[in-house]
Amino acid sequence: MNKCQSKIGYAQIDIAFKKPEKNLEKILKIVKKYDFDLIVFPELALSGYDFKNKKELLNFSFEREDKIFDEISNICKTSSKIVVFGFSEKSDGKIFNSSLLIDENGKRYVYRKTHLFYRETILFEKGDTGFFVKDCKGIKIGMMICFDWIFPESSRSLALKGCDIIAHPSNLVLPYCQDAMITRSLENRVYSITSNRLGGEGTYHFTGKSQIVSPQGIVLNRASAHSEKIYIVEIALNLSRNKKINRYNDIFKCRRKDFYEC
Amino acid sequence: MNKCQSKIGYAQIDIAFKKPEKNLEKILKIVKKYDFDLIVFPELALSGYDFKNKKELLNFSFEREDKIFDEISNICKTSSKIVVFGFSEKSDGKIFNSSLLIDENGKRYVYRKTHLFYRETILFEKGDTGFFVKDCKGIKIGMMICFDWIFPESSRSLALKGCDIIAHPSNLVLPYCQDAMITRSLENRVYSITSNRLGGEGTYHFTGKSQIVSPQGIVLNRASAHSEKIYIVEIALNLSRNKKINRYNDIFKCRRKDFYEC
Repeated sequence: MNKCQSKIGYAQIDIAFKKPEKNLEKILKIVKKYDFDLIVFPELALSGYDFKNKKELLNFSFEREDKIFDEISNICKTSSKIVVFGFSEKSDGKIFNSSLLIDENGKRYVYRKTHLFYRETILFEKGDTGFFVKDCKGIKIGMMICFDWIFPESSRSLALKGCDIIAHPSNLVLPYCQDAMITRSLENRVYSITSNRLGGEGTYHFTGKSQIVSPQGIVLNRASAHSEKIYIVEIALNLSRNKKINRYNDIFKCRRKDFYEC
Repeated sequence: MNKCQSKIGYAQIDIAFKKPEKNLEKILKIVKKYDFDLIVFPELALSGYDFKNKKELLNFSFEREDKIFDEISNICKTSSKIVVFGFSEKSDGKIFNSSLLIDENGKRYVYRKTHLFYRETILFEKGDTGFFVKDCKGIKIGMMICFDWIFPESSRSLALKGCDIIAHPSNLVLPYCQDAMITRSLENRVYSITSNRLGGEGTYHFTGKSQIVSPQGIVLNRASAHSEKIYIVEIALNLSRNKKINRYNDIFKCRRKDFYEC
């Protein structure tokens, strides 16, 4: 791989409620079939979303090192791929709304959703990992999940930690996020991959329109609201590493922290 | 005035380069003619924008208490109006790209642009006032100028200081700001008034599309790119004071500062 060129993408899929094996099969099929360096799947891509209570959710939650993930790990290792997807994570008796990054060596990293939305606050523990960046195949990848988008500090924190690409598994039900992610990419000069799901559960209707945005705020691709789609695009990492927007303004060096309220 | 209802607006105007008296006359006419609590004019509304150097700019710069502003101050006082406009401010031998807020008592407050854009970095000193909020007629008003928008910390700082309405005088030449301000209003649950200018100077073409956005991210009005427009709308301040977006999420209380990089 050329150091500056990477193939990144999203898989906008419907997810079957309480059917982890079925969902995993769909994910595996895509991971095997397509050629990419990094692909991002939606939030809670194994379990589905609308659980009644913690007890019910626990049955569809997995530990990071669960063997259910072994096959994806093996594929990542043998074909040098990076996969990100959301799952319900159990750990020491707690349940988190997490995102799993499996790197090109099959190694697993977990991000736990920092800002829980609506009834998630009842089902999950607040994330305790914070925002971090992993260097995989020379790509600096950061994760945030769905509702994290509305807090500008989420993407800002990832960008300040050197992120090239924000992997953003989502189960969006409101219409604002996709346009806001253009601003997130633009203000931080990073790529963002928002992978949203389709379909509905109970009163929730998930809104699709998964997208990839460039560090210049250009929507490289946006899916429809109605059908599954796998999209892979070749991108240049040097764009996310250049924070100069003209010869006078570097978007990071021009920050004036002394005047910022936190 | 009902405490919860305020009339706020923008004046999208062309500005004559190096003709402060002519520009002031236009501003005065609007301030006299329209009924409002708060109106926002563009950035550098007295002088125009594209100065060769500091020496040239100095001739079109004014001190905060300059008598050129007396007539506006008097109108504000007698008719209980609040006016915000950009001007080139001289102070102790320095020049700032500033915004003047004249309150309903005719008192003047200056915000000095924190993040200078492009050649402004040569012409002006970096602002030293920081972001502050003034309570005028029960409306908590904060100011930022043009390019400040790209730094999420600008509007965030104002919102965290209790701002209801961001008054945002602008001379925009790029197409991104207006959509980004929807995100700024939404993520902070505040009103924003972006008052942009029309016309061109040298290689600069100013892009109009002034707008007012509600705390729910609704564009209450957006002007065209091609003609002058004065727009006033009645708004409810209780919307900017309610940071709850559903019964589980308060956009401020859900912030998790321990995980934010600054």
